[in-house]
Amino acid sequence: MSKPRVLLIGDIDLSLHSHARYSSNFELIDYKITTRERFLEDFSTNSEYFRLNGIFSGWPAGGGVGKFDSELVGLIKLNSPDLKIITTCAVGYDAFDLTALKEHGITLTNTPSLGAEDVADLVLWHTLESFRYFSKFQNHLAEYPNTVESRGILENQKYKYPFGHIYHQHKIESPRGKRVGICGFGKIGQNVAKRLDTIGMEILYYSRNEVKDAQLPFKFTYQPNLKELVAEVDLLVLSLPGNSSTFHLIDEALLQHAKDGIRIINVGRGPIIDFKAIVNALDSGRVQFLGVDVFYREPEVEEELLKRDNISFTPHIGSSTARVFNETAEFCLKNLEKVLIKGESAESAIV
Amino acid sequence: MSKPRVLLIGDIDLSLHSHARYSSNFELIDYKITTRERFLEDFSTNSEYFRLNGIFSGWPAGGGVGKFDSELVGLIKLNSPDLKIITTCAVGYDAFDLTALKEHGITLTNTPSLGAEDVADLVLWHTLESFRYFSKFQNHLAEYPNTVESRGILENQKYKYPFGHIYHQHKIESPRGKRVGICGFGKIGQNVAKRLDTIGMEILYYSRNEVKDAQLPFKFTYQPNLKELVAEVDLLVLSLPGNSSTFHLIDEALLQHAKDGIRIINVGRGPIIDFKAIVNALDSGRVQFLGVDVFYREPEVEEELLKRDNISFTPHIGSSTARVFNETAEFCLKNLEKVLIKGESAESAIV
Repeated sequence: MSKPRVLLIGDIDLSLHSHARYSSNFELIDYKITTRERFLEDFSTNSEYFRLNGIFSGWPAGGGVGKFDSELVGLIKLNSPDLKIITTCAVGYDAFDLTALKEHGITLTNTPSLGAEDVADLVLWHTLESFRYFSKFQNHLAEYPNTVESRGILENQKYKYPFGHIYHQHKIESPRGKRVGICGFGKIGQNVAKRLDTIGMEILYYSRNEVKDAQLPFKFTYQPNLKELVAEVDLLVLSLPGNSSTFHLIDEALLQHAKDGIRIINVGRGPIIDFKAIVNALDSGRVQFLGVDVFYREPEVEEELLKRDNISFTPHIGSSTARVFNETAEFCLKNLEKVLIKGESAESAIV
Repeated sequence: MSKPRVLLIGDIDLSLHSHARYSSNFELIDYKITTRERFLEDFSTNSEYFRLNGIFSGWPAGGGVGKFDSELVGLIKLNSPDLKIITTCAVGYDAFDLTALKEHGITLTNTPSLGAEDVADLVLWHTLESFRYFSKFQNHLAEYPNTVESRGILENQKYKYPFGHIYHQHKIESPRGKRVGICGFGKIGQNVAKRLDTIGMEILYYSRNEVKDAQLPFKFTYQPNLKELVAEVDLLVLSLPGNSSTFHLIDEALLQHAKDGIRIINVGRGPIIDFKAIVNALDSGRVQFLGVDVFYREPEVEEELLKRDNISFTPHIGSSTARVFNETAEFCLKNLEKVLIKGESAESAIV
């Protein structure tokens, strides 16, 4: 029997001991995605990319080819009638059209959130930024290498001695005693709760259904009404998937209900927040701080955000640790082996 | 009876409701410190600054006039024989020569560490930086406003798709399962322990004596031998006071015992670390990351530190929140009232 043909899109480190054996189990076909047009052409005409049995989609989810919709999936399937499984290293699978995959009898697997604690650490960092502005102070110190002077500039020389409790017009506050509303209370949301409880915050959460099995050693309150939630919290954390039901969940209308000076952190997907609405709210001060790991038109980042003094931003690296990079690849490779070699069913199958 | 004369050095916000009444209880004399020479001249010759009963030393500790040593204290006392009390808003009192104050019968009070949790939050931020390099990623994203491109530059284009688990030559790691050694296990150290336990770190601590009354709901291990501690931890946190017994505690000889690739965070005082030794260790990689809120020749900051890619730095703002700024002032004002108006003894007296 010939080896199953597996297409690699996105990245993987096959030099790792645990990954190396897969190189001998599969016929691996490497493909570097440039544009969708090029991809469609290559998969229509180049027989090197025909007769695939599986696709390993490393980072990013979908490999950067745009949506795996019926156009794309139909085209691949034309020349690879035995394509059985696509694995994505990510937790989110918004790059895949589930209906199209189902129609073509293709299994899609994501990974369980192996990086949930890492994402929660990133939320913690943005939270500290939103109250304490540490990285802004760092940048100013890099420019003015004198602790007192650099603080003085930030306080607009208002005080005889700059203590560091003011950053431009923003008062530096402690998160203690403040309230957070966590939207999405899965593995990531609950890990965020643990961390923000430790720095003294009161925990509320919002999700479609009450999470009954959450085992956390502190008080946390379910708030099923998002309008009411935003009215009562000092910080809103968005750890929701990107899909049609979360699209523009945070919009102009909702923000009008928000507590004045609310902070918002988004580690879900950019389009959960209406971009125009958040820019207006940051301008007016209704939202005093925005922390984001995801962007509206990713991978592009709106330059007008980057210049603001009340925003922290990271390039979508919530779960980007060496451990997660390798463990997610391992998980996908095992799934490909299960389905294509052992004839078992896949773990963490979406369709 | 005339009102007690209180000199204000450093800053205070008298517009606060709780502070305002002190303006009527005391004759307040404002002084903005420029240089030590000028200060010595003013207090020798300008009768405006004679006949003081108390000194409110706001931030910084000592008001930025250098050491309150026998030269300075003797000179003030010459024209203010009834000077009874100096209050400093800080916890640390290394700016004051206790022997000189004692000789002149002057009480010195510091404040209890009202900012301990705030300092611990800052240590948490530096810890996240030391493992995840978030602010470095932020700076690169500001320069290259595209998430994937900005990560690619940092990974030296080594991968087809930059996941974000590499920052230059540094592997991005999670703090989970890693060990921290906390030097100094008072209120700050214990609050640091709580936070680092929550992000999954194993807690060890070093102090002159075992801390028997620490009530923490997780395992923490006393290690009385600093050489052994540095050999077994991935992160060393220095939350010690600056004095002769901690001067150059971290030196070349000690660092030779350190675990390869140790991270060090200093929120105590700059001179706890031998500057040359740490620069060498950062160069060689023996120390892989340094996070500092305090500097060797504060307020000056060594410019060679600021350019490195494996250091995070904040301008001595560990406890710089609006709440601490006001609560410490309130504490000092109360002490001045106790001693100079009510004839009671001061709280938190050092001498």
